[in-house]
Amino acid sequence: MINASIITIGDELLIGQVIDTNSAWIAQELNKIGILVKRRVAVGDTWDEIWKALDEESAHSSIILITGGLGPTADDITKPLLCKYFNGKMIVNDAALKNVIHLFENIFKRPITPRNLKQAEIPDTAKVLINPRGTAPGMWFEKEGNLFISMPGVPHEMKGIMEEEVLPAFSKKFDLPHIAHKTLATFGIGESTLADMIQDFEEALPTHIKLAYLPNFGIVRLRLTSIGANKEIVENELNKKFTTLQELVKEYLVTNKDEPMERVLGSLLLKRNETVSTAESCTGGYIAHLLTSIPGSSGFYEGSMITYSYKAKEDLLQVKNETLINKGAVSEEVVKEMAEGLLQKLKTTYAIAVSGIMGPDGGMPDKPTGTVWVAVGDNKKIITKKFHFRFDRQKNIQLTAMNALNLLRMFIIEEGK
Amino acid sequence: MINASIITIGDELLIGQVIDTNSAWIAQELNKIGILVKRRVAVGDTWDEIWKALDEESAHSSIILITGGLGPTADDITKPLLCKYFNGKMIVNDAALKNVIHLFENIFKRPITPRNLKQAEIPDTAKVLINPRGTAPGMWFEKEGNLFISMPGVPHEMKGIMEEEVLPAFSKKFDLPHIAHKTLATFGIGESTLADMIQDFEEALPTHIKLAYLPNFGIVRLRLTSIGANKEIVENELNKKFTTLQELVKEYLVTNKDEPMERVLGSLLLKRNETVSTAESCTGGYIAHLLTSIPGSSGFYEGSMITYSYKAKEDLLQVKNETLINKGAVSEEVVKEMAEGLLQKLKTTYAIAVSGIMGPDGGMPDKPTGTVWVAVGDNKKIITKKFHFRFDRQKNIQLTAMNALNLLRMFIIEEGK
Repeated sequence: MINASIITIGDELLIGQVIDTNSAWIAQELNKIGILVKRRVAVGDTWDEIWKALDEESAHSSIILITGGLGPTADDITKPLLCKYFNGKMIVNDAALKNVIHLFENIFKRPITPRNLKQAEIPDTAKVLINPRGTAPGMWFEKEGNLFISMPGVPHEMKGIMEEEVLPAFSKKFDLPHIAHKTLATFGIGESTLADMIQDFEEALPTHIKLAYLPNFGIVRLRLTSIGANKEIVENELNKKFTTLQELVKEYLVTNKDEPMERVLGSLLLKRNETVSTAESCTGGYIAHLLTSIPGSSGFYEGSMITYSYKAKEDLLQVKNETLINKGAVSEEVVKEMAEGLLQKLKTTYAIAVSGIMGPDGGMPDKPTGTVWVAVGDNKKIITKKFHFRFDRQKNIQLTAMNALNLLRMFIIEEGK
Repeated sequence: MINASIITIGDELLIGQVIDTNSAWIAQELNKIGILVKRRVAVGDTWDEIWKALDEESAHSSIILITGGLGPTADDITKPLLCKYFNGKMIVNDAALKNVIHLFENIFKRPITPRNLKQAEIPDTAKVLINPRGTAPGMWFEKEGNLFISMPGVPHEMKGIMEEEVLPAFSKKFDLPHIAHKTLATFGIGESTLADMIQDFEEALPTHIKLAYLPNFGIVRLRLTSIGANKEIVENELNKKFTTLQELVKEYLVTNKDEPMERVLGSLLLKRNETVSTAESCTGGYIAHLLTSIPGSSGFYEGSMITYSYKAKEDLLQVKNETLINKGAVSEEVVKEMAEGLLQKLKTTYAIAVSGIMGPDGGMPDKPTGTVWVAVGDNKKIITKKFHFRFDRQKNIQLTAMNALNLLRMFIIEEGK
């Protein structure tokens, strides 16, 4: 089994100004080709810390992937350090230089500064990995049986180098085992209850198959992972276990793929050749954003009205002023009128309407922060549901969206002709 | 100087299924009270790996914060490991038990299962840290001069324990130095050009003040960090440098706070007592979502029309059918009509309208994927701008939103009465 460590470099990671999304992506891609990430380490822009991390991770893993610390600005010390660590001297690399010139002439269309040209200098002990999307090249070093790959921290540049250079080279160089994952998602059941429900199944799993619980925003995903030399054997065995697992949790099953709720709903609509629109108050467009973040969403999504104020609710969705005054904007009656107004306006098969108080302010004694009304339905029937979330604004918005999408999903399954 | 390491535990972090947001939050909070995070390490749910990480990080830092691996399900091995690592034996902790019972009776309102009760068991060598938001308690261990804090991985539970127990205890226990950060944001200038512009300033900085470049979505943030024993001296010196830095980059300055673009625009509107609405095609509600993710956004934001289809553009925004047919949905004429239609409908001071091709499909020879038209303006004047982004769907949506918000920001500064 080939193990990898990921080292991310940058003070911004250690003071929490930036969230590391690179590591997750790298881990996913390595996993797909049968390399296990064993450790991920983040260190600051400090000579000693980077040096020690290289030493330490060499003892843990045979492949060390390094991101960050290669930008054109002066807070970067990674390149000179790598030069010294791998006993090289800096030289201008022809291929890297050509790439810098090409990018500035044809893509960025800006004049080149001396600082940009310096990006083409790399240690002579490195093999250059061309960066198709930026000026900082990747570098490939070998030392005492370990492999070190250094890449810039800008996510889309790192991804370009991984996809075009690193991953193909790994697949060629190593005889890799097969790793398979199968993930399903449940909604509306707690982690503990789920665990009790599948306890016998879990205890009977062979040691090379692992089960993990991944709870997030009302969804609990269950992931089975198996590993072995033979792809067919690994996948057949895993598929059987996965079928059993689906059966065990079927009452709460949302999807048997590793996909978000919005994609589940989108696929359902596409399959039925139906459409949805949203009328959003408290979620402020977040449900529409989720639906339209799926490629091809124009096949099932028509449009939305984001109606934050009373006036917008009245003018755009024909919510009655007296309903707003008598019942308040966060009420069953108002979300129902919002959904009705929306269906009339946009003539989609289904509508989702939400109104709530996301916080931190706006709560009232009878409607505390976190109170949300959701309506979903079609032109024959509209159902409503009240929720009460207890988190911060961001999380309340996300939970409202997830619950609204799930409510429509269940409505379609139960009521859809 | 007190250093900390963060260890996050969970296979899901190593296969890339989950992005670690806990570490960034913890780092921020520790930083505020004068504790520097030196390293962040992620390891899988494996006895050996967790044990080794505890050993190794003890050598790096005097405080080790551990998150994850404490949920009620069987993939968790962290608690028994900690019990052994700190030579304890498992006992039922009264305070933790009371908390579990309280949560189920008063908050979750569900029956307690044996699995839930087991959460109240902790090693007798630990001091319990009550989790106000969940059943898994935090634990405080001391060993050979090091401090170890173990917390569940669910973000809002971890935050509750940190805020109510850990941070106050650290501030009381240690004599901490003062760390100060000042961050500004620029827009529309590359990292290299910016670096050239402020090279002399950067080179003249004293060694205890660090400058970092943080590029993201067209924005480059510059962060100055200083550290010292005396709060007043540290902040005075940093403020002076920060004033100089603002002056140097003023042409591109968006804000002199560490705040996102949408907050900059929101504050500007609030100050002027003006409002905005959006008409979004390709961004599908993302701009509305950004604006409404700010608490108090109802003070400047009225509503949006998300018009994905031709029909929605015509019905909701009175875009002329002939304009759509002759010029296409992604055209200067259409975004202008969208903005005009929106201003007429919602009567806000300003409007933002966007239409583009976000990919991966939908590109045409004359309008490749990434082509975007943006219109911003008020009822006197509407300006338009064409963009061409070269990334994936998600990043194209984010870049479109950032550029649209910035375009309106500049319009208000230049044209706003």
